[in-house]
Amino acid sequence: MTLPRTPPSTPPRTAPRDPKQDRSRATRRRLLEAAVACLAEHGWTRSTVAVVAERAGVSRGAAQHHFPTREDLFTAAVEHVATERSAALRALHVRERQERERAERERGGAEVVGLVGVLVDLYTGPLFRAALQLWVVASYEEQLGARVAALEARIGRETHRMAVELLGADESVPGVRESVQGFLDMARGLGLANLLTDDRARRDRVVAQWARILDDALRAPN
Amino acid sequence: MTLPRTPPSTPPRTAPRDPKQDRSRATRRRLLEAAVACLAEHGWTRSTVAVVAERAGVSRGAAQHHFPTREDLFTAAVEHVATERSAALRALHVRERQERERAERERGGAEVVGLVGVLVDLYTGPLFRAALQLWVVASYEEQLGARVAALEARIGRETHRMAVELLGADESVPGVRESVQGFLDMARGLGLANLLTDDRARRDRVVAQWARILDDALRAPN
Repeated sequence: MTLPRTPPSTPPRTAPRDPKQDRSRATRRRLLEAAVACLAEHGWTRSTVAVVAERAGVSRGAAQHHFPTREDLFTAAVEHVATERSAALRALHVRERQERERAERERGGAEVVGLVGVLVDLYTGPLFRAALQLWVVASYEEQLGARVAALEARIGRETHRMAVELLGADESVPGVRESVQGFLDMARGLGLANLLTDDRARRDRVVAQWARILDDALRAPN
Repeated sequence: MTLPRTPPSTPPRTAPRDPKQDRSRATRRRLLEAAVACLAEHGWTRSTVAVVAERAGVSRGAAQHHFPTREDLFTAAVEHVATERSAALRALHVRERQERERAERERGGAEVVGLVGVLVDLYTGPLFRAALQLWVVASYEEQLGARVAALEARIGRETHRMAVELLGADESVPGVRESVQGFLDMARGLGLANLLTDDRARRDRVVAQWARILDDALRAPN
């Protein structure tokens, strides 16, 4: 994969800019974002390369230049989902660390409820919906299955690591690792519960209660 | 819906038996079970009425006699999933109550870890996989959407009620209701994590840890 590690909208200032390459990157990015949106809204069957190209405002030829097959396009889109999620988590982490430092200065503690809510929110947006469509298709489409499983394992490890950092959990304490894992499983389940109906009101109450439970579990583990 | 509340394999002993009606019920049941298996293994797109009929060993005409449209077949299959899950939960509940009474006689307490594991197991089998395929398709197929959402709401309420009974939770205590809800969300998330890979080893560790945490939360709620 040649996806840039930094978002394309902020290229290194020192590199000489190539307008043609910039346009190519922008086209690629538009296709990936359209693929994720199509998957989230219409599912796998209706998300053909032609539909994605039209949504992205890109010619079918240009789409096929970037992604020769449908599997190429959607595998790259999953990679894009992963990169976007990581970027969101990283941004969260920096902002959170700053807020935590401020909170610690002001009143000596961080708000675990807010953190838990923000982590759960990662599982209720269009990125999660698209990933869910892919997981489900990958469960019976062999060509996608292995790729998506490997990617999911990587995303799972990264999400776990970020959650541990965000929550300030000490994984050297027995049980803490499983406490964080179970919490992320709950976040995934809450995302699934939000698929057919707007589940926000119930979810907010569950998150408030489970933030308290998780806080107790992380501070005084079994 | 005319699905019997008791499993068709155990009709009321006092009712006169009608062999033709028995055969019709058996055919219907074979079609529903084949529909669930097809959905779990092959997803919506490949689960046509013809494929389900062939798997059930039923002629296409007989399948269409029972279910005029594809939506009819799969909506009934969802109902079947719900009925099967309820029956499994009811069976669990009776067995568990017997075991709990025995345990209380023997050593004065019930094993919440085993209960939590059994509840989580409901989300990792073919019934959950089929339901997941339907939820995902229902998220963009309008004809299925409203039916599946209504059914899911009903199943969700029933599952919650059974979990409360099984765990011996007292919902009059503030926070207990949300503790049980969050646990069922976690079980759903664990089911999803099991979709692409065999997640049992990790799941067992998470369940062991969260059974302890849930036990504490239910006994000494916030």
